[in-house]
Amino acid sequence: MEPQFKRIGVIGSGIIGASWSSLFLAHGLDVIAYDPASDAEEGLRDFVRQALSQLTDLGYRGQGQLSFTTEISQALDDVDFVQENAPEKEELKRRLLAQIDEALPPDVIVASSTSAPVRSHIVTDCRNKARFIVAHPFNPPHLIPLVELVGEDEAVVAQARDFYMSLGQKPVVLRREMQGHIANRLSSALYREAVYLVEQGVASVADIDAAVCNGPGLRWAVMGPHMTYHLGGGPGGIAHYLSHLGPSQMKRWASLGTPSLGPEVQEKLVEGVAEEAAGRSIAELEQMRDRFLLAILRLRKEMQDGQA
Amino acid sequence: MEPQFKRIGVIGSGIIGASWSSLFLAHGLDVIAYDPASDAEEGLRDFVRQALSQLTDLGYRGQGQLSFTTEISQALDDVDFVQENAPEKEELKRRLLAQIDEALPPDVIVASSTSAPVRSHIVTDCRNKARFIVAHPFNPPHLIPLVELVGEDEAVVAQARDFYMSLGQKPVVLRREMQGHIANRLSSALYREAVYLVEQGVASVADIDAAVCNGPGLRWAVMGPHMTYHLGGGPGGIAHYLSHLGPSQMKRWASLGTPSLGPEVQEKLVEGVAEEAAGRSIAELEQMRDRFLLAILRLRKEMQDGQA
Repeated sequence: MEPQFKRIGVIGSGIIGASWSSLFLAHGLDVIAYDPASDAEEGLRDFVRQALSQLTDLGYRGQGQLSFTTEISQALDDVDFVQENAPEKEELKRRLLAQIDEALPPDVIVASSTSAPVRSHIVTDCRNKARFIVAHPFNPPHLIPLVELVGEDEAVVAQARDFYMSLGQKPVVLRREMQGHIANRLSSALYREAVYLVEQGVASVADIDAAVCNGPGLRWAVMGPHMTYHLGGGPGGIAHYLSHLGPSQMKRWASLGTPSLGPEVQEKLVEGVAEEAAGRSIAELEQMRDRFLLAILRLRKEMQDGQA
Repeated sequence: MEPQFKRIGVIGSGIIGASWSSLFLAHGLDVIAYDPASDAEEGLRDFVRQALSQLTDLGYRGQGQLSFTTEISQALDDVDFVQENAPEKEELKRRLLAQIDEALPPDVIVASSTSAPVRSHIVTDCRNKARFIVAHPFNPPHLIPLVELVGEDEAVVAQARDFYMSLGQKPVVLRREMQGHIANRLSSALYREAVYLVEQGVASVADIDAAVCNGPGLRWAVMGPHMTYHLGGGPGGIAHYLSHLGPSQMKRWASLGTPSLGPEVQEKLVEGVAEEAAGRSIAELEQMRDRFLLAILRLRKEMQDGQA
């Protein structure tokens, strides 16, 4: 499926904006990126260079044209689609979206990479509310396929969904808005219990992390929690699981912890992470993670291409 | 590192016992498996045949000897290590461990693949309590590296830890026992929020699953939640994350849901999973999962071998 939009306005060229730009460029789309900081261009171009080499590894060889501007009007001129990536401040987003709304023809879709604020709070000052959607990526969007979509007009959401799918992304659609969307809420739920186990002295930070990435985390790269419990139910699947083990699952839920991130727990977490990092810097750890991530994504692509 | 034990008694040869047996055999250890059901031998040998071909794919070429018995005394005769995999019933486990305790020399370690019962409840009738540990695998243990260890004697736990590591497993040590150990509690925490989002009509079962395996799940195959938030903190790492975003994390925690698995929610879950499965049988889904799992494990092994 060919992307239906050819020229993309990217508003805000920090890490998220730069990562989106890379994905668009790798699929042959032209990008006009705007940032108010005049020194943002260098950071953007550095990021894009590196990201494009990763995307080439994954088999994407498109070559769109990248331009940069410090004038927002230029980034909204003659574009087919806008991806907005301003800082996560509700009031700032609200003003910015209204400004974008004024400048653009009413049928151009504007997708906001918004994480914390909910959609209804940031579109209040827009006249053409329906064209605004939240399209929340998981960092970095040029590698991680998830995009969470929230909108009010089904046709607009469907168009955006098709567009992201044409870029190899895996968009999911929220039927109603929710603080934290889906993925951040699930991450937060996992983290809460992970912190509780540290608070309660059950295991070290390193062992709790190891339990995830050598255990259930291996499955979660392949299938989500619902499908996992479906397969956990044996031949009877999820229906059997719920009718036989539903009550003990609810008992387990009731036993999960609600830790507090007070000074003592924070100290335990910081010490535990330092022990786990074992002298490796953030940059080294990120490189390790991205090397694995890229390899897993290459693998998935090969297996999906093999199935197609 | 060579495994320090050569002849392993496997008590209970169902799916978990058969999977453990396969792992031991692939590392060149001899296995004497016991099951009270005389027709269990065929199921065991079928399982082992298939599992050994998967393990050969992963580069394990050892060839231990497999024997089967319906007499428990034979499976405890002259063995260096015992892996117990009886059904998850506390009273049954308690009697069985006491029986094993009587029959074995006091220095042989007995590892119980116990998931639900806690260790202190099942060793009560044993004279040599210290030699009993919980060694809870994540199914199937011949593929998934995680083993959760709980014991009372540090030296015994350390010996078991070394043994599992020599088989390529990734054991983690609980400092004190906890219902559900680590991984099942974390899975349960993730599932609770996943069910809540279905209950609240935020997204479909399929989209919630897709959000995991195309988003945070990809990272969790590489690193656990603590390290993930460490990298989420930017150059300041987890200390910066906690001091700046700790309060909003706690606010998020307070907003997470506590769903009930009542009939209405069960119906939504069953329908949603059927939609996601899209006609694929449990067996087909399992095959898909295991094909991906094996590929990810092969990849990790290559990358780790490359680092060594």
